[in-house]
Amino acid sequence: MNNISAYSASGPKARVAPCTIERRPTGPTDIQIAIEHCGVCHTDIHFVNNDWGMTNYPVVPGHEIVGRVTEVGHEVKNFKAGDLAAIGCLVDSCGVCNNCEKGLEQYCLNGFTATYNSASADPGGFTYGGYSTSVVAKESFVLRVPNSLSGPGIAPLLCAGITTYSPLKNWEIGPGQKVGVIGLGGLGHMGIKFSHALGAHTTMITTSEEKGNDARLLGADDVVLSSDPAALAKENGSFDFLLNTIPVNHDLTPYLELLKTNGTMCVVGAVEPLSQVNAAQLIFGRRSLAGSLIGGIAETQEMLDFCGEKNILSEVEVIRMDEINEAYKRMEKSQVKYRFVIDLASLN
Amino acid sequence: MNNISAYSASGPKARVAPCTIERRPTGPTDIQIAIEHCGVCHTDIHFVNNDWGMTNYPVVPGHEIVGRVTEVGHEVKNFKAGDLAAIGCLVDSCGVCNNCEKGLEQYCLNGFTATYNSASADPGGFTYGGYSTSVVAKESFVLRVPNSLSGPGIAPLLCAGITTYSPLKNWEIGPGQKVGVIGLGGLGHMGIKFSHALGAHTTMITTSEEKGNDARLLGADDVVLSSDPAALAKENGSFDFLLNTIPVNHDLTPYLELLKTNGTMCVVGAVEPLSQVNAAQLIFGRRSLAGSLIGGIAETQEMLDFCGEKNILSEVEVIRMDEINEAYKRMEKSQVKYRFVIDLASLN
Repeated sequence: MNNISAYSASGPKARVAPCTIERRPTGPTDIQIAIEHCGVCHTDIHFVNNDWGMTNYPVVPGHEIVGRVTEVGHEVKNFKAGDLAAIGCLVDSCGVCNNCEKGLEQYCLNGFTATYNSASADPGGFTYGGYSTSVVAKESFVLRVPNSLSGPGIAPLLCAGITTYSPLKNWEIGPGQKVGVIGLGGLGHMGIKFSHALGAHTTMITTSEEKGNDARLLGADDVVLSSDPAALAKENGSFDFLLNTIPVNHDLTPYLELLKTNGTMCVVGAVEPLSQVNAAQLIFGRRSLAGSLIGGIAETQEMLDFCGEKNILSEVEVIRMDEINEAYKRMEKSQVKYRFVIDLASLN
Repeated sequence: MNNISAYSASGPKARVAPCTIERRPTGPTDIQIAIEHCGVCHTDIHFVNNDWGMTNYPVVPGHEIVGRVTEVGHEVKNFKAGDLAAIGCLVDSCGVCNNCEKGLEQYCLNGFTATYNSASADPGGFTYGGYSTSVVAKESFVLRVPNSLSGPGIAPLLCAGITTYSPLKNWEIGPGQKVGVIGLGGLGHMGIKFSHALGAHTTMITTSEEKGNDARLLGADDVVLSSDPAALAKENGSFDFLLNTIPVNHDLTPYLELLKTNGTMCVVGAVEPLSQVNAAQLIFGRRSLAGSLIGGIAETQEMLDFCGEKNILSEVEVIRMDEINEAYKRMEKSQVKYRFVIDLASLN
């Protein structure tokens, strides 16, 4: 019996409604998970609205999934029923390209299989995400949740967490470095926590005093208001690394100027054309503008283990499944600290 | 007697005409050089025209200077009269900032002194460049020319050479890597030579078959025509590093797509706002867009020594001093292979 309860969108109006979908049977290398919590990512709204023109309706969003293992295939080695397990943005990749061989499944050269809306051999022809009571996935894409972590704050680690952890690790952030996190939302608040935990001097770059105060509670050593050009300019040339989590196109000029010689600004929020990049700022200072996408499976496990060790969780507001459309509206107004997480018990 | 012959521009009309200027006397740590050759850089035209709004007229351009030492101050240690010596884009820097301490004088945090048009204690209050029979500079900013090099092809190494050598070294280009050089002009032709000499598989990315054939003679292993979108797209995801020498704003989209995961495109030509940078291309592939400015003094010496060892010179067309205005016109139409060099004997 694989018919399960889920919430799907069947058209581009940011309306997600109850549905019944079929999950594939648990194959020999598969794990079935009863979902307890699923984080709500901005990407979900983009797919529901078909903002990127690639949505296959009906779409069941959700790629920040945590729950209990209910069934394992006979070839599964590292999980058993009852384990707390997690699934992030990926459920498969080719496994043989240069990037997959390096554990960079998020950059799979043959195209990874996303947790939802990707063509797959699942019933219905596409993957379906975590706004659902149950999910089935390959063991090699299922993550172990450290015993020291519990509650709804785990779920957003699977996307917001790894999206900010991966670039900080890739650019070797640690003690003695000055890191700026631009924007305080789902990504930004995790960026502050990770940068601080990695030992860097961490500055929140945000628009309001209130957000700045919140950022200090999350671990920011300093706050600079981007709404105050003079205050921002005082920090010019002082940052080794900037993690830019602003989710929409914006003028990068004042931010690039903050970087030291050889510094890098990594964009993780705005997945779109940038209207203002001045090559002179890159040239006079050998600066780099980079991007980064989530993380590979091994790195996501490393991130979860790091969170277990440092007791890092996402700050969340728990909602019932039937509150999802209201949650989307609030997210579009940035009215969430800092991530909605669906309690899937509300769907049973 | 320090009144010497030079060519200066006294207003923004791309007209350079004879003048007499005063050079400072040779101080204890100074070297005086009788200039034999001076390369003509696009930057010279920008300053003559006051394109960047920072020209102090009269301006004597020229920062690719090679000549014979005629006089040395009593504290000068490494040069003597008769030595072949060179001066590039810099003649001074603070010497004490974090960047100067690392040999990155080109990124001096207190502002380097450029070879021309920089405020200085020289007579006239500004530095004057190499369109001149003579120059005086501090020993620590004067380069040694290896004995194996001779002729007018040395001069452009001091700007076009180091501008392309420095990023290739910074991004650790060598055997096993695939490098694309975009644009075949003064910078691009040196980029091809250096990338090839450093052992990378080197592809010329240019607009015409004819330029492609020229590039092969300069050391390119391959040619891809940027004017053929399908041919360009075949190379998507294949380059470790791109050296972008296009001197004006252009759409970076087709070029960023050429980079492998973790690849970098370094812009060295277009010192201006870029109208088309798509963050999605950076994010899906963890790519970087960077810039780089000339090189430090130690690295410029390293580059000259490398050229001596590998017998690398710039391809040049020698002109008389009074042909300079015609040369500017031809440069603006890209009608030079690949750098004009002034024979300063024509000014005596």
